Amino acid sequence: MTLEEQREHILSGRMYDDLTPELVQARERTVLLTDEYNRSFGRPPAERQAILRRLLASVGEGCHFEPTFRCEFGFNISVGDHFYANFDCVMLDGGGITIGNRVLFGPRVGIYTSNHAIDAAERAAGGCYAKPVTIGDDVWVGGGVTINQGVTIGDGAIVGSGSVVTRPIPAGVIAVGNPARVLREITGADRTGFRP
Amino acid sequence: MTLEEQREHILSGRMYDDLTPELVQARERTVLLTDEYNRSFGRPPAERQAILRRLLASVGEGCHFEPTFRCEFGFNISVGDHFYANFDCVMLDGGGITIGNRVLFGPRVGIYTSNHAIDAAERAAGGCYAKPVTIGDDVWVGGGVTINQGVTIGDGAIVGSGSVVTRPIPAGVIAVGNPARVLREITGADRTGFRP
Amino acid sequence: MTLEEQREHILSGRMYDDLTPELVQARERTVLLTDEYNRSFGRPPAERQAILRRLLASVGEGCHFEPTFRCEFGFNISVGDHFYANFDCVMLDGGGITIGNRVLFGPRVGIYTSNHAIDAAERAAGGCYAKPVTIGDDVWVGGGVTINQGVTIGDGAIVGSGSVVTRPIPAGVIAVGNPARVLREITGADRTGFRP
Repeated sequence: MTLEEQREHILSGRMYDDLTPELVQARERTVLLTDEYNRSFGRPPAERQAILRRLLASVGEGCHFEPTFRCEFGFNISVGDHFYANFDCVMLDGGGITIGNRVLFGPRVGIYTSNHAIDAAERAAGGCYAKPVTIGDDVWVGGGVTINQGVTIGDGAIVGSGSVVTRPIPAGVIAVGNPARVLREITGADRTGFRP
Repeated sequence: MTLEEQREHILSGRMYDDLTPELVQARERTVLLTDEYNRSFGRPPAERQAILRRLLASVGEGCHFEPTFRCEFGFNISVGDHFYANFDCVMLDGGGITIGNRVLFGPRVGIYTSNHAIDAAERAAGGCYAKPVTIGDDVWVGGGVTINQGVTIGDGAIVGSGSVVTRPIPAGVIAVGNPARVLREITGADRTGFRP
Repeated sequence: MTLEEQREHILSGRMYDDLTPELVQARERTVLLTDEYNRSFGRPPAERQAILRRLLASVGEGCHFEPTFRCEFGFNISVGDHFYANFDCVMLDGGGITIGNRVLFGPRVGIYTSNHAIDAAERAAGGCYAKPVTIGDDVWVGGGVTINQGVTIGDGAIVGSGSVVTRPIPAGVIAVGNPARVLREITGADRTGFRP
């Protein structure tokens, strides 16, 4: 299969061979391209945005990753406008990662859409399967959060620092813990009257 | 407001605009200066200490960060004598970080004094608020620990690896877990008779 | 004591002085050598494997660490065939780390064999003690997992992402959480029929 055929196969959720030359080569290209992005820190935003456009499936306006950004392929990551990821963001994007507008990541967020096979022999043979991660608009993911495959996070939700997200988080709540559970809803009482 | 005025405003605990040109520029300068520090690994201690003195509010004798150290501003971090941070320490120091003498950090410790606004519209408008983190003398923070805004850790305390510290830790205890809770007090029975 | 004598002393599990010139120098050498390995990304596998052989106690066929790999000494790490560590693996290997064949690490795994003394005065004097970590064949350690000193992980086990492993994990199970607990056994029902 070509890389594009493998990409479609992986996105379909079926088991795939993680060790094909095409995937190994794609990952290597991605490390080098993220290196280029990370090294471009301090260069004009348009120049950095151009590297992101080569790296990711789609990128909105005003996206910024602090160093050091790492991802598996990049070509399965779609990011809305005004996305900001603080230091050391890691995305394994085989299964597809879709991020809405005005999303904020604290430092050291990890999104892992790909899992190895549960059976040891299948795992040793390269067996993997992936499930997408979808993050809505206006989500804030705290520092050191891990997001597992198949998770959705609803609009406006907040995930507290150090959480491990294993199940869907609804819109408009604060979720914390390992595994992350809803702590409370966000309400009008959370408004402080802040105006920039 | 000037950068210094904004710094004072943030340290006061009031909501602030995270997206002003002055703060964005200060963060960029800080990344470049921490890059310089990280690249200086292996150079004479005095030379490295000089970079730290430009980066941090105050630095005691014999401080050392293994690569890769990252912080948001640096100018709100005060570190006592003989501080040692192992690999990949991250400090978001908007709210102020004060660290005592003889403090040890395992790898991948994260201190996050700044939070985004809880309300999505205020968050999208750049609203943030910060609270200080204070770490006493002789504290050991284990690997992979996350420390949230407003936390104090008392003298001699130990925070177990992988913990998420959301509330104050008293002096002289071992605390572990997500969220971190006191496991037990440290007593004379913990002495082993070690002498270097 | 020479470095080799200190190494043996540390591996014996007794308290040791973490601050001797020999250990400080060994750590510095290791950072520079891992830098060399990390920078060699994209170079021919044989060339990279040669650096690993200088760095680690023993390395099997086809081992690969994605950037950025960090370890404390390296010379106490033994890795079997076809080991793969994803981004940002950290190993503090004073107490010895033994990893079997076909082991897979997700991003941001941390193994910490060395602990500081519990007593503050002994800790300030450089007191540390280490216990080995042993990981069997066909283990998969998920992203963001922390593994503490003295832990063994049995053949074929899976540790879920974001877990903190504080006690032994038996063979053939899935363990998750902070602290990691056995979730279930892996059985024949986990086979999917995958063939590459």
